[in-house]
Amino acid sequence: MPKPRMTLDPSTPFRLSDMSDAPSIPQGFRMGAVKAGIKPSGGLDLAILLSDRPCTTAGTFTLNRVAAAPVQWDRRLVPSSSIRAVVINAGNANAATGAEGLANVKRTAELAASLFGCEAKDILVASTGVIGHQLPMPKLESGLHAVVPTLGSTPELLDLASRAILTTDTVPKVVSRVMELSGRTIQLLGMAKGAAMIGPRMATMLGFFITDAHVGSDDLQTLLSHAVEHSFNCISVEGHASTNDTVLLLANGAAGGDQLVGADLESFASEVKSACVELARMIPADGEGATHLITIDVEGCASRREARDLARAVADSPLVKTAIHGADPNWGRIVSAAGYAGVPFEENEVSLWLNGVALYRRGTPLAFDSARVSNSIRMNRETTINLVFERGDASIRFWTCDLTAEYIRLNADYTT
Amino acid sequence: MPKPRMTLDPSTPFRLSDMSDAPSIPQGFRMGAVKAGIKPSGGLDLAILLSDRPCTTAGTFTLNRVAAAPVQWDRRLVPSSSIRAVVINAGNANAATGAEGLANVKRTAELAASLFGCEAKDILVASTGVIGHQLPMPKLESGLHAVVPTLGSTPELLDLASRAILTTDTVPKVVSRVMELSGRTIQLLGMAKGAAMIGPRMATMLGFFITDAHVGSDDLQTLLSHAVEHSFNCISVEGHASTNDTVLLLANGAAGGDQLVGADLESFASEVKSACVELARMIPADGEGATHLITIDVEGCASRREARDLARAVADSPLVKTAIHGADPNWGRIVSAAGYAGVPFEENEVSLWLNGVALYRRGTPLAFDSARVSNSIRMNRETTINLVFERGDASIRFWTCDLTAEYIRLNADYTT
Repeated sequence: MPKPRMTLDPSTPFRLSDMSDAPSIPQGFRMGAVKAGIKPSGGLDLAILLSDRPCTTAGTFTLNRVAAAPVQWDRRLVPSSSIRAVVINAGNANAATGAEGLANVKRTAELAASLFGCEAKDILVASTGVIGHQLPMPKLESGLHAVVPTLGSTPELLDLASRAILTTDTVPKVVSRVMELSGRTIQLLGMAKGAAMIGPRMATMLGFFITDAHVGSDDLQTLLSHAVEHSFNCISVEGHASTNDTVLLLANGAAGGDQLVGADLESFASEVKSACVELARMIPADGEGATHLITIDVEGCASRREARDLARAVADSPLVKTAIHGADPNWGRIVSAAGYAGVPFEENEVSLWLNGVALYRRGTPLAFDSARVSNSIRMNRETTINLVFERGDASIRFWTCDLTAEYIRLNADYTT
Repeated sequence: MPKPRMTLDPSTPFRLSDMSDAPSIPQGFRMGAVKAGIKPSGGLDLAILLSDRPCTTAGTFTLNRVAAAPVQWDRRLVPSSSIRAVVINAGNANAATGAEGLANVKRTAELAASLFGCEAKDILVASTGVIGHQLPMPKLESGLHAVVPTLGSTPELLDLASRAILTTDTVPKVVSRVMELSGRTIQLLGMAKGAAMIGPRMATMLGFFITDAHVGSDDLQTLLSHAVEHSFNCISVEGHASTNDTVLLLANGAAGGDQLVGADLESFASEVKSACVELARMIPADGEGATHLITIDVEGCASRREARDLARAVADSPLVKTAIHGADPNWGRIVSAAGYAGVPFEENEVSLWLNGVALYRRGTPLAFDSARVSNSIRMNRETTINLVFERGDASIRFWTCDLTAEYIRLNADYTT
C-alpha cells in the first residue's frame, strides 16, 4: 500500500510550496502576461503563449453541454498543424454567453492574429472565471496590445503567465520535463489552473503544455488524449464539471531533428503522461479550502470505466470528504459510495484499506485500531484509499481533496 | 413561477416546527419506543409498529450495491399479505456487516415473531445509524422485551416512535391523511427520518406508512412505487445514496369494507402520493446544517428520466448549493451543472428562472437586478429554480437543500 509522504500540520489549508527552481522555456516559445482589468481584484489576468513557428497542437475539452465560447472555438481548430499562439484570460469564463460570446472569441483571435502575423484560425483562446458575463472587450483588446511587446522566454515571464491564468488557486501550477531523444535535448513545459468546479469528464480547467519536440499531429493528439485520460480525467474537487475545461499541447519542433517516431515517440509520450499526472495532482492538492489530498486506488475491476465510476463516486461523496477532513475512519461511507456508482458488484467481492490499514475484507468488517488510523489521517496531508474488487484486472488511480468549511465560505459568496 | 412562502431569518439553520396537532393512529395499529442503549447518546432508539391483523405491505428499497442486512431481509418478503410488525432501530445501520449482520436481522425477526405470535417472515426490520458495526444484540433483545408491553395507539406513543427512528434529524417527521371512501373513514399515517446520506436512487432513508384501508397487495405496491417515484426519489441532501433506504406501506384493512377499487383506489393512491411528497420535502428541509429548502422544477424534457438527471445534477452540485447558501445569484453554476448531466441538450434550448426572475433565456444571459434576486434568496427559506428546456413535455419537481459550514462540522466527526 502506498504510504503518506508528508507530515505537516493540516490544521491550516494544504498549500503547495512555490517552485524553487524555475524551469526553462522550450525553444522557440515566448510568453508574458498583464493586468488587463478583467479580474475585479486588478490582478494579472491576460496571458499569451506564442511560438515563433507553427505548432502541431492537440487538445482535449469539456464534455459539458454548456461549453464556453472559447472551447467551441478551439475544438473546431484542434488538432492542427498551424497554431501560433494561445490567448488566455482569467476573471471571465465567457461561458453561457450566447452569440455575443462567440463573436468576442472571434474578435480576440483576429486581433491576436493581426499582432502575430498569422490567421485567426492559428490562434487558440481559453478563458476562466465567472460564467454568464460578457467579456469586457475594450479591456481585453488594450491588454493584448500591451502584452505583445513584453513577450520573452525568461523565468520571470513564465512566472507571470502561470499566475495570470489562476482564479481562486493559491499557487501557480507548473511542471517541466527535459529529455534526450536521439541525441537532441527536448523540453516540455506545462501549466494549469483550477481549484474548484473540478469534475472533469474530458479534461480539466485550463492546462497548457508547450514543447520544442517535433511530433506529428495525429501522434500528438493520441498521446495527449492518453495522458489526459490518466491524469486530468482522474481528479475532482467537488465533481462539478466546468464549462471551460481545456488541455492543450503545442509542439513547435524547434529542438530540431525529424518527427519523433518509434521508441523516441514512446519516451516522449511517457514524459507527457508523467507531466500531466504531476500537474493534475496539483489541482485537488490546491482544492479550495482543502486540507488533504486523497489518492483513491481502485483495483480488480472488469473495466477501466467501471474503476473510474467507482473512484468518482467515492471521490465526490461529501460524506467521504468530510470524514477525511475530520480524520474519521468512518469507512462505511467509502463502501456505501462505491455501492451507488452503478457498478453491479457483490458486497463479498469488496476489500478496503485506508492509509494501508485493512478495514473491510470481502464484505466483512475487520477489527482495527481506530485511533491509529485516525491519527494517520490527521498527521498527514495525503490520505490513501485502496478499494479492491474481484471482478477483473482493470484499475485506476484518482485524486481528490477533502471538503471543509473554508470551501463553503469561499463559494457562498463568489460573484457578489 | 412558484413564490417562496416563508420569510424567516435564515441566519440560523432552517428547522421545521414540531407538529401542533398530533395525528391519530389508523385503526388496528399500535406503536411504541424505548431507549435500548444502541445510540451512544442514550436516546430513544428502538421503535415498533404493530398491526393486530396481517397487513398487505408494499415497499421500495435502496439500489445501493451495499444494501444493509435489514434491506436484504425486507426485500425478500415484500410485497406481502401477512406482515404484522416493523422493528426499527436507530444508532446502528447494520450495513456492510456480512453474514453476522444478516444473522442478527433474522434473530431480531424471530424474537419479535415469538413476542407477537406470528412467523419471522411476518416481521420487517429497518435500521439506521453508523455503517460497518455489528448490532449490539443483547441491548436490542432487552429493548424488544421492554417495548412490547408499552405498545398502544396514543399521540404520546406516536411521538416516541417518530423520535426513536431519528439520527441527526432535528425534528420528527410525521404526516397524516384522513379520507372518506365509499362511506368509510380511512386513515393514513407516515413517519420518516433522514438529514444526510440522502441521494435516493430508489427510496430514501426510513419512511413508514400505516393505514387501515383495505387494499390489495399488487395495488398497494403499484401505488406506493408511483408515489415514491414522485417524492422520495426526488430529494437529496448531498447525493450520497444510503445503504438503508426503505419506504414501507402497511395496510391492515381495519377500517372495514371491501378491498379498494376503481375511483376509491385512485383517491387513496392520490392521498398516499401527496403524503409521500409532504414527508419527502421534510428531509432536505431538515438537511444537516441547511438554511434553505431548494425546489428545482425542470420542464420541457424529452423524458422524465432526462428531467431527473438534470435536476439531480443541479441539486447535488456543491457550487449550486453554496451559492444559494450565500444568497448569490450565480446562475452560471446552475446551467453548467445541467450541462454535465449527460442530457444532450443544446445551449439555446435552455431558459432559467430563479425565484421567479428570468436570468437566462434560450442560451442568452438576461440583464437582471442582482441585488433583488440576492435579497429574495436571503430573506426566504425556500428558493425555487425553474429550468425550462425545449425538448418535450416531461418534467420533474425535485427538492434539495443548501450546503453550509455546519454540514461540514456535523460530518467531519460522526463516528469518533
